[in-house]
Amino acid sequence: MHFLTYQSNGQEEIGLLTADQKQIIPLLAAEHHFYGETILPTTLLSLIQQGELALQRVKSIVKSVEAQSDLPFLLSPDNIRIVAPIPRPAKNIFCIGKNYAEHAMEGDTSADPSVAIPKYPVIFTKAPTTVIGPGDIINSHSQVTNALDYEVELAVIIGKKASYVSKEEAMDYVFGYTILNDVTARDLQKRHQQWFRGKSLDTTAPMGPFLVHKTSVPSVNDLTVTLKVNGELRQHANTNSLIFDIPTLISTISSGITLEPGDIISTGTPAGVGAYSTPPVFLKPGDKLELSITGLGTLINTVG
Amino acid sequence: MHFLTYQSNGQEEIGLLTADQKQIIPLLAAEHHFYGETILPTTLLSLIQQGELALQRVKSIVKSVEAQSDLPFLLSPDNIRIVAPIPRPAKNIFCIGKNYAEHAMEGDTSADPSVAIPKYPVIFTKAPTTVIGPGDIINSHSQVTNALDYEVELAVIIGKKASYVSKEEAMDYVFGYTILNDVTARDLQKRHQQWFRGKSLDTTAPMGPFLVHKTSVPSVNDLTVTLKVNGELRQHANTNSLIFDIPTLISTISSGITLEPGDIISTGTPAGVGAYSTPPVFLKPGDKLELSITGLGTLINTVG
Repeated sequence: MHFLTYQSNGQEEIGLLTADQKQIIPLLAAEHHFYGETILPTTLLSLIQQGELALQRVKSIVKSVEAQSDLPFLLSPDNIRIVAPIPRPAKNIFCIGKNYAEHAMEGDTSADPSVAIPKYPVIFTKAPTTVIGPGDIINSHSQVTNALDYEVELAVIIGKKASYVSKEEAMDYVFGYTILNDVTARDLQKRHQQWFRGKSLDTTAPMGPFLVHKTSVPSVNDLTVTLKVNGELRQHANTNSLIFDIPTLISTISSGITLEPGDIISTGTPAGVGAYSTPPVFLKPGDKLELSITGLGTLINTVG
Repeated sequence: MHFLTYQSNGQEEIGLLTADQKQIIPLLAAEHHFYGETILPTTLLSLIQQGELALQRVKSIVKSVEAQSDLPFLLSPDNIRIVAPIPRPAKNIFCIGKNYAEHAMEGDTSADPSVAIPKYPVIFTKAPTTVIGPGDIINSHSQVTNALDYEVELAVIIGKKASYVSKEEAMDYVFGYTILNDVTARDLQKRHQQWFRGKSLDTTAPMGPFLVHKTSVPSVNDLTVTLKVNGELRQHANTNSLIFDIPTLISTISSGITLEPGDIISTGTPAGVGAYSTPPVFLKPGDKLELSITGLGTLINTVG
């Protein structure tokens, strides 16, 4: 199931891709069509918070849609505006730093893996005000930075409350996955010592286009992750090379920090960021960023 | 005006201290008494979000209360349970590190002020799940830390949306102030490189007891800040020695990161934390923490 959030008459609604990925199922219209009533919520965040019963109802609606043809309510992707799957998270996004060895090495002056590669996950956050959707403009914030950089990442969306969860049971707490661009002001990231400020400028967390349910991502540890700037491939890796895998991240964070439905954990970026290119290259207005992860689609944004 | 949030029959309600600070005005009951209807919201966060008109109505209610005696709806503080003024913030709390010179020096091995004292504000966050209220138990999280420490701080609550605000206009964006204990797991703070994990364990942001409107805190740059552990004075400072004052913090953060009504900025802790005592002393179950700031009351919690 590929969930998405779209705007219709200024309101946000939940949609799903059809099996052939050519049309959008407007969830509440479909629910009304098949059940004669709507009990599902209007936002994806609320749907995730409602848990298993709501998910069962969605599954049965999708099944009913697939069993029929010529349904009057299906939408063309061309006629709607897809926004971030969770446009306004209920807390900051949890982000992981230095979680691919090659990236940890490229960003370290010691050239010593025992120094560069973290022994424990490096965790920081991005404010909810950073989130934008597919096609939205990334603000270059030229008043405060001249070193804006990209970072393609696999993001995990939590499905149920998790506290002191073991690695073995961690995947039970996942709802699904999306693509996140951890856009970073490198100068601010360094200048303020802690990374938060350089990571949290408005519009620096493009996210989407879909929130793909975990049952549709059987091989989350073997996904190709790529990022192109103006058509040129800059980042290319596989999630099998994460230093701390998803169960380790969920177990580590939840050991003391309760994770809640709808929480977002962005798993870190691979090598190839602009700051560590020779010479360094930073984003400039007009740059087009294309981020792809196997099975999760492509997230495109331009810098404004 | 000393706002507070209290629990009544399992529901949260907004209250205010009377002028003599001996009784609580239940805001909605008072509104109903004087206006015959209630249009104010039920949470302090919503009230702040509603802005100036809601605040004007509160002021007129308080004025009406002060003009009368023997009002039947006033409550005794002994009969209610005060919780955190904003029990569930809408995003992580913004926190400032190393913002008192003596504390920046005590935590630095270089003994060199040009190294220890930050040139730009050090900003990190605490998750909304850290918040607890007066009298609540601070979880010792002994499964993951044996270096839990206290930090008394003046916290600023933002009153209206702020983006690229100058220092000169920054104070217009403040709603009020409260006391925050930035409880920190020192071992996790170091081990994970970025401070977030060591700063975000559940229950490590005791807050309150009041949210004092800025008009009741005329000298916010001259407040005495103290913390006692089991009656012994450990931290004692004045907000006049903040390295980055409140206008600087609001101007710096809002330059790129939009601040929203109800956002919380905790301004940093002075010298005297347990980790840098000789020998280091960490919190243990049963310890009683008393945090006081001039005009903001006393926040008491014990470690469990």
